[in-house]
Amino acid sequence: MIRFLLIGAGRIGRIHAENIVRGAGSSLVAVTDADARAAAELASRWSCRAVKPDEALAQTDFDAVLIASSTDTHADWIERCAAAGKPVFCEKPLDLDIGRATQCMRKAEAAGVPLYLGFNRRYDPSFARLKHEIAAGTIGSLETLHITSRDPAPPPVDYVRRSGGLFRDMMIHDLDMARWLLGAEPVEVFARGSALVDPEIGAAGDIDTAMVMLRTADGRLCQIANSRRCSFGYDQRIEAFGAAGMVSANNHTATSVTVAGKQGYTTEPALPFFLERYADAYRLELEDFIGALNGKKVELATGEDGRRALLLADAAQRSLTTGVAVALS
Amino acid sequence: MIRFLLIGAGRIGRIHAENIVRGAGSSLVAVTDADARAAAELASRWSCRAVKPDEALAQTDFDAVLIASSTDTHADWIERCAAAGKPVFCEKPLDLDIGRATQCMRKAEAAGVPLYLGFNRRYDPSFARLKHEIAAGTIGSLETLHITSRDPAPPPVDYVRRSGGLFRDMMIHDLDMARWLLGAEPVEVFARGSALVDPEIGAAGDIDTAMVMLRTADGRLCQIANSRRCSFGYDQRIEAFGAAGMVSANNHTATSVTVAGKQGYTTEPALPFFLERYADAYRLELEDFIGALNGKKVELATGEDGRRALLLADAAQRSLTTGVAVALS
Amino acid sequence: MIRFLLIGAGRIGRIHAENIVRGAGSSLVAVTDADARAAAELASRWSCRAVKPDEALAQTDFDAVLIASSTDTHADWIERCAAAGKPVFCEKPLDLDIGRATQCMRKAEAAGVPLYLGFNRRYDPSFARLKHEIAAGTIGSLETLHITSRDPAPPPVDYVRRSGGLFRDMMIHDLDMARWLLGAEPVEVFARGSALVDPEIGAAGDIDTAMVMLRTADGRLCQIANSRRCSFGYDQRIEAFGAAGMVSANNHTATSVTVAGKQGYTTEPALPFFLERYADAYRLELEDFIGALNGKKVELATGEDGRRALLLADAAQRSLTTGVAVALS
Amino acid sequence: MIRFLLIGAGRIGRIHAENIVRGAGSSLVAVTDADARAAAELASRWSCRAVKPDEALAQTDFDAVLIASSTDTHADWIERCAAAGKPVFCEKPLDLDIGRATQCMRKAEAAGVPLYLGFNRRYDPSFARLKHEIAAGTIGSLETLHITSRDPAPPPVDYVRRSGGLFRDMMIHDLDMARWLLGAEPVEVFARGSALVDPEIGAAGDIDTAMVMLRTADGRLCQIANSRRCSFGYDQRIEAFGAAGMVSANNHTATSVTVAGKQGYTTEPALPFFLERYADAYRLELEDFIGALNGKKVELATGEDGRRALLLADAAQRSLTTGVAVALS
Repeated sequence: MIRFLLIGAGRIGRIHAENIVRGAGSSLVAVTDADARAAAELASRWSCRAVKPDEALAQTDFDAVLIASSTDTHADWIERCAAAGKPVFCEKPLDLDIGRATQCMRKAEAAGVPLYLGFNRRYDPSFARLKHEIAAGTIGSLETLHITSRDPAPPPVDYVRRSGGLFRDMMIHDLDMARWLLGAEPVEVFARGSALVDPEIGAAGDIDTAMVMLRTADGRLCQIANSRRCSFGYDQRIEAFGAAGMVSANNHTATSVTVAGKQGYTTEPALPFFLERYADAYRLELEDFIGALNGKKVELATGEDGRRALLLADAAQRSLTTGVAVALS
Repeated sequence: MIRFLLIGAGRIGRIHAENIVRGAGSSLVAVTDADARAAAELASRWSCRAVKPDEALAQTDFDAVLIASSTDTHADWIERCAAAGKPVFCEKPLDLDIGRATQCMRKAEAAGVPLYLGFNRRYDPSFARLKHEIAAGTIGSLETLHITSRDPAPPPVDYVRRSGGLFRDMMIHDLDMARWLLGAEPVEVFARGSALVDPEIGAAGDIDTAMVMLRTADGRLCQIANSRRCSFGYDQRIEAFGAAGMVSANNHTATSVTVAGKQGYTTEPALPFFLERYADAYRLELEDFIGALNGKKVELATGEDGRRALLLADAAQRSLTTGVAVALS
Repeated sequence: MIRFLLIGAGRIGRIHAENIVRGAGSSLVAVTDADARAAAELASRWSCRAVKPDEALAQTDFDAVLIASSTDTHADWIERCAAAGKPVFCEKPLDLDIGRATQCMRKAEAAGVPLYLGFNRRYDPSFARLKHEIAAGTIGSLETLHITSRDPAPPPVDYVRRSGGLFRDMMIHDLDMARWLLGAEPVEVFARGSALVDPEIGAAGDIDTAMVMLRTADGRLCQIANSRRCSFGYDQRIEAFGAAGMVSANNHTATSVTVAGKQGYTTEPALPFFLERYADAYRLELEDFIGALNGKKVELATGEDGRRALLLADAAQRSLTTGVAVALS
Repeated sequence: MIRFLLIGAGRIGRIHAENIVRGAGSSLVAVTDADARAAAELASRWSCRAVKPDEALAQTDFDAVLIASSTDTHADWIERCAAAGKPVFCEKPLDLDIGRATQCMRKAEAAGVPLYLGFNRRYDPSFARLKHEIAAGTIGSLETLHITSRDPAPPPVDYVRRSGGLFRDMMIHDLDMARWLLGAEPVEVFARGSALVDPEIGAAGDIDTAMVMLRTADGRLCQIANSRRCSFGYDQRIEAFGAAGMVSANNHTATSVTVAGKQGYTTEPALPFFLERYADAYRLELEDFIGALNGKKVELATGEDGRRALLLADAAQRSLTTGVAVALS
């Protein structure tokens, strides 16, 4: 039984809390948040303690930490957990700055503290099956990868300003998928983007529509397409094409209902957003974090995976700005 | 090269004319119709002779006859072709009356004249593949069959009155499919029907919505569902279920386009009606008729197939009227 | 907060236990089972009391009873709960005997005790949406209903012998779906069945393949097809056809993955069996039971619904035996 | 009635011959080919004259020319037709060299001779419906375009050597689709490619796997993916994504059959290659060529469209070679 300290009582924190409580191998002992009321509320919901942030790591009755606080606090928390010798499962990203991200990761390494990152898509059952089929040789040698990722609606411009930009905030998930499914590091990144959805996003110096092309050393190619708006739900699809075939994962829907009429056959839009699409993934990644602490080999992203995805996002940003493809060593 | 005399210059006759002309192994030498102008027009379109009905069989430069005239003339034409020693491909049915149907069929047999019936669905590429997969053992032993057949809109009540009723006019195609795919004769027919689409059809003594259940001697079961109206096109589907799996044929559409939006994903309705859905079937059945004349083994329905389908339709009608299941020897 | 006594610690009991514990509005206080060890194990899993069957209703700290014991004990437990004045949610059926089923239901009525039956399919999100669309008028007036229900594999013959037969054990779910979706009582039942899957089932006097046709007073028709074996998973589909369109619910799958290769495009088989397909339904029906106790209008089947579904199953059995359609008043 | 001279009796020439003969508004008067026997055979099949290449344009009884000869002869034939004042429908491309292509096009312009190019995909019913939906505003403002185009198997290396390379030989079709569907000229081309399918193709200086990214002046983006090998048939898909939705065209299949079994649900692979997938397109583009000669507004690609597609292919080739994105004015 792994006892958890939960850092962050916001939307994602609440999901993790529920999964910790309901999991057969985990329990929630305490929760903390900069907003004391949010912490108290969540603690009350699951009958655990609410603690102040600066007292959180002084607790002794927990085995692991789940960090789901705001992005700008991740690195600090990781370093404090490292100092306390507590294994960490941290929501992505480590940090928006590659230097700071690397630094906190190194501290966890130096302390011998396991550090995993919440790239939850690795635990989506459909994407996990893609990975499995590729590894099993179902499509022969993987040649090209095609990732589509579109949010249902753009975030507030205020959020966009603090987000680090589309590549670091949104596409970073797809960049992790690319590395994970390709099983290799891209050596080149080419990126293009526009503000087609919301001119305010453009005015804030960011983009809302983007395409990226990646290339591996052995010549395999990957396309990624992002949009901050999608009228038919949360569009999350991947297609992996190989010498002997193709595996693809389509969107998920709430039901299997079709309505037929003069207009033709209509099936449901994609699930609305990540809370619905990745509900299973949030639960399964937590199970594997517990498994990892018990020595199981897992697909969880590590701190290093987080750092490498951020490197790709930075390269994409540089390619967008400079207009040229960026080589990665 | 098989030279054809075409009897009937209506909607179906015109389809057959075009297929005869375009086929590599056939030519059209003459066409006749009770309506001399229709015959003349069709003859002019394809540069062949228009002849009067009573002089049609006096021609000598043709090898086979295609009968696509009105239903009540089929039996007479078959008997005249039998007398003239000319092979016949006749649109379904032989006749609406089982006695008359049997009689004309016997005359063709006695004259040694090949007689085939236009149960065109046997040549629909999707249904033909069902037959092939069942024969190939793909689904193991066939256990149940499920046939859905819905017209886009009810015919005029005037047509309904002369049609012989839904079972003889419409479901007879499905009854042929059932016999053909089951590979066995049903020994029991149970039928129910209602006039739900158009009360005028009910007032005319017919039904527009029907279900039939068939059973074979070895206990296999078949469901048929018919409606005279369908808002999403011509609904033509079959599902064959067996010990090791299922094969099913879905509707056909004009394009492979999907429109995604707030409403979900919308694909096209089924093709509008039989001219579109069975365009390939009309062409392929004609090819096989020519093949049959050249000794090829074919899936074409014979006169006997037409007689047996009519027996089933009669039994369905009797079951509907009497309320009990009808046994067939 | 509704406090539950759970009767039955078997496979279904364990599902309900988990849903009771995890539900926001419910808690599990005690569990009982003829097998004391099973009760103790489940009680230990969820930190509640295990009690002996004959002492179960002597407890006072619970508000409702969930009956998930073996079928032959349902009626007794219902009567005991009625005497104790405790609301009941009972797994289907009330009893295999219509007389006994009616009797226990009447006792609950007389005692003013709410009695609901676990026809869980009403809470499958896909079937629930069918009901919703029909009620919303999406397909205009409902004309025909088509229900397919196939188990992945036949149960042991020993189970078959005690089951009451396919109609009362398996098709009763589909008969409830038919009544619920038609929104009317069938006035006629015609049934046919065979032992095509397992001759042992036939030797035991039962069937494993069945078709039923239902008719309502206003002439609407319904087909049901059952098989005790299906190679591609748990085949649970419904199609509702109306004047203005059709709504259908297809099978559910574990992922949205497609594998494309020389063979074509392959998607996943249906979910394996009811535990997977109806996991959501088990959870949602319990929520509505709690809602019902709080005065919410719900879609839960009542004791009377259970009695009427059993009447239809009995009629189907009689039709199979006698060969004629059975009229229902 | 438009009377045709057909230049080229190869695979594509034979398709056009059949469509000319079967079309209601066209007839075939003569055919020529460098291979006199091929010309004679085709002429015999359709009862028209076979003529020698250098005498072909001396004929006077034709109204238009269809050029389906080898690529390196297109420009010459176009110039000769221009001199003879005969309208031309020419298979793509004008020429592999942009200078020569421009030159012959200018001569046709100067002579006032209509010149259309066989970018047949514009007449694929599915892609044509995409164009229609975009124009109709179904998806709001078009933002991104995603084109997948994979051949079933690589051509002989010998062909590859003479082909002008993947961009000019294969992707040029997709580049035309991009221009046509975007309704705007790309201002930037970025291309990457590898020889992953056949090392011989790499040894010949070409690639067999490619990705291209296009950008328009207003920031819209387009991805194109090509492969010379695809295990599941001829993979021809397009997805157009806009502010209000998405329209996509999927592959076409020979039948609507699904096989269900332990493996799941299997539908057919894509149609084998262009002759099957674009059979309708070949017929429809010819109808529109005839329509264009009669003054109809058509979607046919013009000589200028051919030139612009070639400019994009040249730019892609340059981007591949230099490693940088190529700007187009």
